[in-house]
Amino acid sequence: MQKGDRSIVYDVPVFFEGEGSVVGKKEGDGPLGKLFDEVVADPMFGENSWEEAESELQIRAAKTALKKSGLERTQIRYLFAGDLEAQGVASSFGMAKLEIPYFGVFGACSTMGETLILGSSMVASGAADYVMCVTSSHFASAEKEFRFPLEYGNQRPLSAGWTVTGGGACVLGRRKKPLAITAVTPGKIVDYGMKDSFNMGACMAPAAVDTIAAHFKDMGCGPEDYDAIFTGDLGIIGSQILIEQLAKKSYDIEGRHDDCGLRIFDIKKQDVHSGGTGCGCAASVLTAFILPRMKEEGWKRVLFVPTGALLSKVSFAQGRTIPAIAHAVRIEAV
Amino acid sequence: MQKGDRSIVYDVPVFFEGEGSVVGKKEGDGPLGKLFDEVVADPMFGENSWEEAESELQIRAAKTALKKSGLERTQIRYLFAGDLEAQGVASSFGMAKLEIPYFGVFGACSTMGETLILGSSMVASGAADYVMCVTSSHFASAEKEFRFPLEYGNQRPLSAGWTVTGGGACVLGRRKKPLAITAVTPGKIVDYGMKDSFNMGACMAPAAVDTIAAHFKDMGCGPEDYDAIFTGDLGIIGSQILIEQLAKKSYDIEGRHDDCGLRIFDIKKQDVHSGGTGCGCAASVLTAFILPRMKEEGWKRVLFVPTGALLSKVSFAQGRTIPAIAHAVRIEAV
Repeated sequence: MQKGDRSIVYDVPVFFEGEGSVVGKKEGDGPLGKLFDEVVADPMFGENSWEEAESELQIRAAKTALKKSGLERTQIRYLFAGDLEAQGVASSFGMAKLEIPYFGVFGACSTMGETLILGSSMVASGAADYVMCVTSSHFASAEKEFRFPLEYGNQRPLSAGWTVTGGGACVLGRRKKPLAITAVTPGKIVDYGMKDSFNMGACMAPAAVDTIAAHFKDMGCGPEDYDAIFTGDLGIIGSQILIEQLAKKSYDIEGRHDDCGLRIFDIKKQDVHSGGTGCGCAASVLTAFILPRMKEEGWKRVLFVPTGALLSKVSFAQGRTIPAIAHAVRIEAV
Repeated sequence: MQKGDRSIVYDVPVFFEGEGSVVGKKEGDGPLGKLFDEVVADPMFGENSWEEAESELQIRAAKTALKKSGLERTQIRYLFAGDLEAQGVASSFGMAKLEIPYFGVFGACSTMGETLILGSSMVASGAADYVMCVTSSHFASAEKEFRFPLEYGNQRPLSAGWTVTGGGACVLGRRKKPLAITAVTPGKIVDYGMKDSFNMGACMAPAAVDTIAAHFKDMGCGPEDYDAIFTGDLGIIGSQILIEQLAKKSYDIEGRHDDCGLRIFDIKKQDVHSGGTGCGCAASVLTAFILPRMKEEGWKRVLFVPTGALLSKVSFAQGRTIPAIAHAVRIEAV
């Protein structure tokens, strides 16, 4: 089951049993707009605060995934969830309603990767027949948590991303389905000493380089073994760094690399600068675009690598660096 | 491996291979003072901020656990860590130095239970030979994160606890040792609608009731099968509620119940009101007191049940409830 320094190859595939995606209006106006299960025009999602809106968004994605899986709520043995808010309140308030044994995780925008690794390992070991993995982000709750009050109308540098209002949920399980997780490579925390929270792509790219290179080494494979390699939200700048740095390690991923943050918005028309970001970016693009695309295109194998910047507003205010992490999940047509 | 509704029983025990505990001066002055691996008089731990102090505390606990395990850093396949700070920065900045593939978790003061469940399940499944589980809290960083600036010198109601400045780390693995994790029962989020963040014990007790009762039901056992049942930080008030509520479910735990928060301080002399709290409370008492005590007293079986209140300062300011969670870990002499 262990493979190389840090990867896990599953003896039995862990199948994608049902997925749900919910996004806001701006995401609905983007190039993937028609693919999401639900596009909600009201940024408050009918709730009273940005935090409650994000919880509602998350619970809707979870319920959609559950419905598509055809399972009852009580058949989901464990739930893995996380978000960007302090103490993960979007998840704990949202997921409390499901009354499923709960593991809160924090991996910033890499959270969907972390939940998929932990969830799939529980299914693969036989500790659970079905688990659910959920994550979300909300533009307004993230701006409030990390940056400026929206009312300031502050300007953003071109290197900044735009936090996706969206969430994705996956039910993983043991019943045979077309797509499955067959291997995972957990990330290390990588800190290159960068401090610019308006250039997250550059902060996170070294973590993606580290994890993708580790995955190739552990598995004895290379970019040519993948139909596509999707990072989470490196955006324009981070994607360039990733491609260049992996090329220096003799891995040419340029023709196969894609980034959820560059897919979810029309970068030029929608004024999102470097691209979409947030836990919900990778999660909603995975569930609404990547998994369906694998079936449509007959892709055999995709590497899904969400990336996260592990900062807080306190660490930023203290002038500290921005450590980052990336988790890799191998998805195969089985 | 699955047992009952939500428990896992391991086919092979997951052994405690090495533990480390580090605390501050007040904890060192308490009844367990001589048992901790390290008592640090300087609340800043030689660093420049409370957050960095907590990271330093955590890394010291981790290094001590590693040293006692006799393993090299590179033999630890995965690291599970979390803390109370927003976005878990004490853990990510502290643990980055170890360069071990990392899973950040958030379970508030139940975090040590969550890391032990996730870590032990990775060892039990064969995905790792050795993992490390680490968590911490710091009185000053927690007050800053959740309550008032220390400079206010605000008064605290008698129902309030005192956040422990401390951390604990455990290396779990496959080599035979005297003590092991043999079963776990993950918690559900339980929200009884309480809103008083100065009475965390009452907020968390229902979660402990739910998890302990689920454990007994899943395992087909009762309090009489345990030498001791340790909750994390229910304190005086929460412990009373726990005992009463479990009695209503026909589980009499009074003679066997103990609480890490009531052990770490001399409640009357040290002016800590309802008792010690924080992720570091359960973690440091587990590593410095519970595990050694099991060996000394010849105890066969202990249930370790850290409890967490899943609030943030934003959710508190919004007048929302305080959902809670508790995770149960069965530790046996093997």
